[in-house]
Amino acid sequence: MTLRGYTGPLSPDGRAAIVPPPPWHYSGDFLIVEYRADPDAVAALLPPELEPAAEEGAMAAIFADWQSCSADLHELVDPINAQYHEFFLLCGCRFEGEPASRCLYIWVDKDFSMFRGWIQGFPKRLGSIHMTRTFAAGWAAPRLEPGARFGATCAAGDRQIARAEVTLERISETGPTVNQPPMHNTRLFPAAAGLRPDVFELVRAGGRDREVSDVWEGSASLRLYDDTLEDLAHLAPREVLRGFRFSFGYTVDGTEVVARHDAEALARATRDSGEGL
Amino acid sequence: MTLRGYTGPLSPDGRAAIVPPPPWHYSGDFLIVEYRADPDAVAALLPPELEPAAEEGAMAAIFADWQSCSADLHELVDPINAQYHEFFLLCGCRFEGEPASRCLYIWVDKDFSMFRGWIQGFPKRLGSIHMTRTFAAGWAAPRLEPGARFGATCAAGDRQIARAEVTLERISETGPTVNQPPMHNTRLFPAAAGLRPDVFELVRAGGRDREVSDVWEGSASLRLYDDTLEDLAHLAPREVLRGFRFSFGYTVDGTEVVARHDAEALARATRDSGEGL
Amino acid sequence: MTLRGYTGPLSPDGRAAIVPPPPWHYSGDFLIVEYRADPDAVAALLPPELEPAAEEGAMAAIFADWQSCSADLHELVDPINAQYHEFFLLCGCRFEGEPASRCLYIWVDKDFSMFRGWIQGFPKRLGSIHMTRTFAAGWAAPRLEPGARFGATCAAGDRQIARAEVTLERISETGPTVNQPPMHNTRLFPAAAGLRPDVFELVRAGGRDREVSDVWEGSASLRLYDDTLEDLAHLAPREVLRGFRFSFGYTVDGTEVVARHDAEALARATRDSGEGL
Amino acid sequence: MTLRGYTGPLSPDGRAAIVPPPPWHYSGDFLIVEYRADPDAVAALLPPELEPAAEEGAMAAIFADWQSCSADLHELVDPINAQYHEFFLLCGCRFEGEPASRCLYIWVDKDFSMFRGWIQGFPKRLGSIHMTRTFAAGWAAPRLEPGARFGATCAAGDRQIARAEVTLERISETGPTVNQPPMHNTRLFPAAAGLRPDVFELVRAGGRDREVSDVWEGSASLRLYDDTLEDLAHLAPREVLRGFRFSFGYTVDGTEVVARHDAEALARATRDSGEGL
Repeated sequence: MTLRGYTGPLSPDGRAAIVPPPPWHYSGDFLIVEYRADPDAVAALLPPELEPAAEEGAMAAIFADWQSCSADLHELVDPINAQYHEFFLLCGCRFEGEPASRCLYIWVDKDFSMFRGWIQGFPKRLGSIHMTRTFAAGWAAPRLEPGARFGATCAAGDRQIARAEVTLERISETGPTVNQPPMHNTRLFPAAAGLRPDVFELVRAGGRDREVSDVWEGSASLRLYDDTLEDLAHLAPREVLRGFRFSFGYTVDGTEVVARHDAEALARATRDSGEGL
Repeated sequence: MTLRGYTGPLSPDGRAAIVPPPPWHYSGDFLIVEYRADPDAVAALLPPELEPAAEEGAMAAIFADWQSCSADLHELVDPINAQYHEFFLLCGCRFEGEPASRCLYIWVDKDFSMFRGWIQGFPKRLGSIHMTRTFAAGWAAPRLEPGARFGATCAAGDRQIARAEVTLERISETGPTVNQPPMHNTRLFPAAAGLRPDVFELVRAGGRDREVSDVWEGSASLRLYDDTLEDLAHLAPREVLRGFRFSFGYTVDGTEVVARHDAEALARATRDSGEGL
Repeated sequence: MTLRGYTGPLSPDGRAAIVPPPPWHYSGDFLIVEYRADPDAVAALLPPELEPAAEEGAMAAIFADWQSCSADLHELVDPINAQYHEFFLLCGCRFEGEPASRCLYIWVDKDFSMFRGWIQGFPKRLGSIHMTRTFAAGWAAPRLEPGARFGATCAAGDRQIARAEVTLERISETGPTVNQPPMHNTRLFPAAAGLRPDVFELVRAGGRDREVSDVWEGSASLRLYDDTLEDLAHLAPREVLRGFRFSFGYTVDGTEVVARHDAEALARATRDSGEGL
Repeated sequence: MTLRGYTGPLSPDGRAAIVPPPPWHYSGDFLIVEYRADPDAVAALLPPELEPAAEEGAMAAIFADWQSCSADLHELVDPINAQYHEFFLLCGCRFEGEPASRCLYIWVDKDFSMFRGWIQGFPKRLGSIHMTRTFAAGWAAPRLEPGARFGATCAAGDRQIARAEVTLERISETGPTVNQPPMHNTRLFPAAAGLRPDVFELVRAGGRDREVSDVWEGSASLRLYDDTLEDLAHLAPREVLRGFRFSFGYTVDGTEVVARHDAEALARATRDSGEGL
């Protein structure tokens, strides 16, 4: 075969692919608000392989302002193909008795990140995501210091998703905790026909060469909106905990399959919802 | 399993999925420019299961202005989730000796259509696509009549892709021909790790309840741009043939697998390109 | 002077201008929901030259899906420079004892329309606006017939503005009424320094060569959202009346100044709000 | 008058205005490529009050990645209303014998910045602008050090405008020079009817509390594209000079009128171009 590509579109030199092969390098700024949601609502979003976390209803609302690239770094000088923003809702959970986390919903503002996400088990939709930045000069940017305020918003498909604000207090000793255990996401790719997916597996996210800046923490607010395609009202904050702000970088080589989900059961359940074939 | 969904994100009622289960209904307006490209450049983009068309280098540049929905039509009153625009480059080819066609590159402006495309073997990227419309009143719209001019553009990632123009002459007796034989696209979904895809198969597009308006034809111009991620310069027009404008609707229930591609060969070829693991 | 232009940017041939000189031709499809808001909230948005309408609190929420062009029609084959969507909130009012209307808030999705609007007294912001379309083929489009449902949404700056739905019942005998009397909008352009605007005048919108299709009417719903920069909660529907759907075209040569607003009084009021210099 | 606002839309509390009153604070990162264009093409874009620069054909292509806010800083926690990107082409020139500069063309990605620009004499269109960023962690970001590469692109209306790249070499002793003298831009706002503008004046940009980081300089490349509404081919680089990268902040209170342009002459010239009334 003279065609090449880690993904389509295939081409003689492979460069037309929407996602280049790993490794993928990432550098980004994060704004996180940890909170507690209704434990039953969180549990209802877990596949059978995952159990609720010890800290019931533990959630993190995570905004990220990313730059990423592949091995030869060529995207960095073509920044529209390197930069993107992301918002996701992460819950704590357990896998085989060990602490884990899971990305429940996620929005991103670029196509390459959307498809690269699906490959890794992040069920990404497009959205509009913005978060306050710090700059080295001028009055129009908070610095990393007590009292500095950072805001963030996410909207998708003409619908508001989330709004958050964090006021920095001090450098954190612990950092955020819900996102500490490895993410256990679901890779799902439908079949050419029918409701039984061709790919349906639980994967554990990894990554190497992790680098993190000082983590600032402080008080936080968070609002999830009610007129969304996803049932976010059920995941809304019952109690807002702390907010965090930091920079982070790492490299991803792929992800690890830790279980096969039951594709037949999914097909049956989806069909029974009255929405299917 | 209490989770449902044709795709992720999975949720208790399945409604969070980025793509609802088929059937999918489509209604749209089309602007097509048929042209001839370098036959070798076209042949170099075919997988081994497909052979060049009898009419060598036969290509169609296709702009579509779509509305689509699932079985219960609910997207139609939430139009941001129903409407999208698309531009694709289609070549003529043969499969098992029979006339066929293949989508080489395609751009779309909505996430649900992008992922639904990947499921059906369309390697979609996001782009910005615009095409002239006709309206029932006023001077600012061509009507369907001789001399009416329709234009269209596509850009993606701050790069220009294509610009076309068609001047209507008469109702066509034949209609466009390159896109007449069934499309044979490639479904490709990478594995959790490594370059050997989990899904890699040749599929034949179908569809039922096809409805088409009168097809207008006329003279046409087409420009493909040279500063693109895809090697479009090689596919540029050597000769521009006719342009066509019409409305079309159909319903899709899925697609049919007609061959398994060689995933190991793809992995080997991609690795040899020096871009991989 | 060798520079030309109806607006900037000026250039030797005048073609770089963001808005070409009038006449401007318009063709579009409209979805309108008439409703009643709190009369005091509406009155509070009128300048002193305008009085409340006889029908107190009369409002129209108007979605428009436009194509426009200048005298030589060149934008029509460059459709990204011809097409745009618009949503606006219009109130009934009176000027010198005669029925009038006024655009209170308006959102649009293209720059040329935004600036052309400011020239005519429409205080346009950018937004994302979508409305259901009808197509000539396929299941994914309502036709113009009883029972057909049309939806529309507007969002701006990651905030939801409005959502509407109209179910067609019959061809209307009266058509919509709130937007019938001429619009009386305010042209405002600040000075180089200070709060006293250089341009601040009441203008009456006109237009010629008006063409309108059959107007369909039916039942309607409308929601305005509460987390907006503008105080839309005060303008929310107390009673939703009828919905309308039609096509409309006309040509605009400019607008007519009918009064000078008091620029000094505006500067004083704005300064007193504690937001100014 | 009970309405308030520095601009429309007017409202009882003035908060609906698309641009709040000055002062406006700005913080941003800059990527600049200085180059020489055809001196005649540059001179043809100057109004009669400005003369060509001593260094003939001196130009700067400037990308800026901004955050801005008004006096109470409230936009900073609503970042979609604070952040924007900008690309502009600046030429050197002279006013009354003194060195000056002028913004010839400019693109921006937010509405509030577009309209605030027009108030200050920047003839802004919407565009898509991206420039490489530096982050505090990870491999996917250049640091400020010799060899670091920064890229930037601008597109507008499905058309490519510019692509630049700068490779840092050292901290600059001089910094960029074309943009050093004060900008002399043209404020232009059309009349309600006719081609003679209501506002048409030459203004000198100012600003206070200027703060600038170390300025890095290095080798650069720049491409302007040819299929644009503006005649950028005439302004294309004949010689590319140096590139610069730095952070900058300042505060703007308004701008200073230094001359009235001849509105009647502009109207006459525009009419003579055969495009007008």
